[in-house]
Amino acid sequence: MPPFASIATDFGAAYTAICSGVVQRLAPTAKVLVLTDEITPYAIVEGALFLSQALPYLPEGVHMAVVDPGVGTARRPIAVRTERGDVLVGPDNGLLMPAAEALGGAQETHALENPAYQLEKPSTTFHGRDIFAPATAHLLNGADPADMGPKITPLPLNLPTPTRAREGTLTTTILYVDRYGSLILSARADDLDAQEFGTPLTVSWTSKDGTPTAIRATYERTFGSVPKGDPLLYTDSSGALALAINQGSAADHYDLTPGTDLTLRPPH
Amino acid sequence: MPPFASIATDFGAAYTAICSGVVQRLAPTAKVLVLTDEITPYAIVEGALFLSQALPYLPEGVHMAVVDPGVGTARRPIAVRTERGDVLVGPDNGLLMPAAEALGGAQETHALENPAYQLEKPSTTFHGRDIFAPATAHLLNGADPADMGPKITPLPLNLPTPTRAREGTLTTTILYVDRYGSLILSARADDLDAQEFGTPLTVSWTSKDGTPTAIRATYERTFGSVPKGDPLLYTDSSGALALAINQGSAADHYDLTPGTDLTLRPPH
Amino acid sequence: MPPFASIATDFGAAYTAICSGVVQRLAPTAKVLVLTDEITPYAIVEGALFLSQALPYLPEGVHMAVVDPGVGTARRPIAVRTERGDVLVGPDNGLLMPAAEALGGAQETHALENPAYQLEKPSTTFHGRDIFAPATAHLLNGADPADMGPKITPLPLNLPTPTRAREGTLTTTILYVDRYGSLILSARADDLDAQEFGTPLTVSWTSKDGTPTAIRATYERTFGSVPKGDPLLYTDSSGALALAINQGSAADHYDLTPGTDLTLRPPH
Repeated sequence: MPPFASIATDFGAAYTAICSGVVQRLAPTAKVLVLTDEITPYAIVEGALFLSQALPYLPEGVHMAVVDPGVGTARRPIAVRTERGDVLVGPDNGLLMPAAEALGGAQETHALENPAYQLEKPSTTFHGRDIFAPATAHLLNGADPADMGPKITPLPLNLPTPTRAREGTLTTTILYVDRYGSLILSARADDLDAQEFGTPLTVSWTSKDGTPTAIRATYERTFGSVPKGDPLLYTDSSGALALAINQGSAADHYDLTPGTDLTLRPPH
Repeated sequence: MPPFASIATDFGAAYTAICSGVVQRLAPTAKVLVLTDEITPYAIVEGALFLSQALPYLPEGVHMAVVDPGVGTARRPIAVRTERGDVLVGPDNGLLMPAAEALGGAQETHALENPAYQLEKPSTTFHGRDIFAPATAHLLNGADPADMGPKITPLPLNLPTPTRAREGTLTTTILYVDRYGSLILSARADDLDAQEFGTPLTVSWTSKDGTPTAIRATYERTFGSVPKGDPLLYTDSSGALALAINQGSAADHYDLTPGTDLTLRPPH
Repeated sequence: MPPFASIATDFGAAYTAICSGVVQRLAPTAKVLVLTDEITPYAIVEGALFLSQALPYLPEGVHMAVVDPGVGTARRPIAVRTERGDVLVGPDNGLLMPAAEALGGAQETHALENPAYQLEKPSTTFHGRDIFAPATAHLLNGADPADMGPKITPLPLNLPTPTRAREGTLTTTILYVDRYGSLILSARADDLDAQEFGTPLTVSWTSKDGTPTAIRATYERTFGSVPKGDPLLYTDSSGALALAINQGSAADHYDLTPGTDLTLRPPH
């Protein structure tokens, strides 16, 4: 079976494919899947949660991921070996850690310092091409992370946690916006008091202009359970609670962006 | 020759690649082409017409397609065997049928009900990952659609048909907007009375604010036949009539969207 | 080692993948990388510079590229053999030439005229599918460019050159906008008088409404060297000078587009 690599970035198609080209040049028999080149630029949380959802479904292999606002600064490039047997390659900014957890947990992590596993004269702005892609290729070819640099303790990803108040009120943060404009929240369905499908909840927040805003949305099994254009809360395929509009964009309609807190209040 | 699969969705890169990962995990020797992840969300007609254009140019194989506003409702997942020898996998909402036609016609269609060919505990919102991708992989590995569920009659795709009135006037619907902002119409060049290149036609419609609007556009062989910024009618690579602006976006310029009727009137 | 092809277009995912499908149908053992399907429509300079950056990092092979406002007109389809041993396939509009240079220089160029290496009845609007992709596949299968048509002299790419005035003032043109909204300039860092990191420069231009505008930006090693939201000049991974905003879009913030001239003035 050919060795398998995946690549996830916020670079767009073109720069991601250069990374893919570097991997294929150095490891010509490997299969290389571009997992995504569409992570919102600089959105570490979005990228990290996406990876933790996606990688368990992929073949075991070397998974390179780059969302890296700190490129060229002191943040370290790392390789993380997981319990399942994968190696995750990327910046040490928390991006890789939820995925490592989803793959059974992180074993050893090594900093990528050995120039023998980098392109010559790495640039300060494109470590994807010059450091992460060559490391990925060498790992596919059988190199050991331990040869690439010292063992270190990787930085964790800091995520906002939902908070509960009296009467089952839950305050939770928008973590990211998915392709359909659905708002993925820091809470899970278990955090809701009322989990029966069809339960109406009041969802409130402070709009960008400072106005308190509230809508009603029912907790539903799937989009098609409400009329086109109506809001709903549902559990997305990763288990996270999400606010959506059937066949519409909740992000656009309510002008909501990651980082905003929503308060969910069940009927009483 | 390795077995070949293609995947077309309205999911964006990330969720489409998860499907690709599921296929590659279960069928590691197959070649998997992401045909598109950019279908306009929920646009079944656009997806269906794209598939019918694209699949005849692809290697024979298993072609999975998902534009699926009804995911999680009663609509059935299906596999359609075609005359050419392909199997099409996707929701039973008409999406697959023009492509089946373009591949020689649909033979047997089976509902995908057998849990042995699905991931465990399929979600209600991501059948691409949990039902369609595993079915695709098992078909690549030699499974028979007949093992996956009962034989059914698939639903057709309902498309608006152009209508002709006196004096060669043709009324036709915008089916979708392509990457360049060109408006692909439900009519074909044969439906036009005057088919000589250079023939000017009056194109009229009702604007979004209710105003009747009319422009002149010539029927041309290709974009470069008119000055930059000028409109033209042409036959797109699928044989459909289309309204475009040379090096511009007709959709943006005229604020036109799928579903709007255009009336084409030749000179007289 | 399997033969290797790459494809770069301004088509978006769907039409690019049709080209990929044609290549895989005719050359089933080849590896085909979509290098990008996201070049700005009709942006020959952006595409040409991207190719010259990317191709040196890819495996040797057949590289097809299409940014082709002249499709269906008299412009010729060509194949260019490079010193490194690659063959570049695309329209004769300058698109391929900087990449040929980056791969050691162009050797022979041939027009693609022989219908034996095209699909039957090529369309006038989709040469990617009907001419360039089949040529790519036949080249992967061992065909010789010389069999495809007569030897010709390809057209060059015309690029604006930066100009210098008294006191180290440099006037340079925005060539393209990258994925992050950074403005890639026609000048290189060597063209700057003051090249020390941290040097402040005055960057001035004429806004779209005719107003003279000026900002201060420092020349920096990388994005993270300035606070979030601040502008900087830096050398991008291709060696070009660029104007960016740390974690923001300079193109959006300053409303600047390709073709605009910027004047950079060092302190004195």
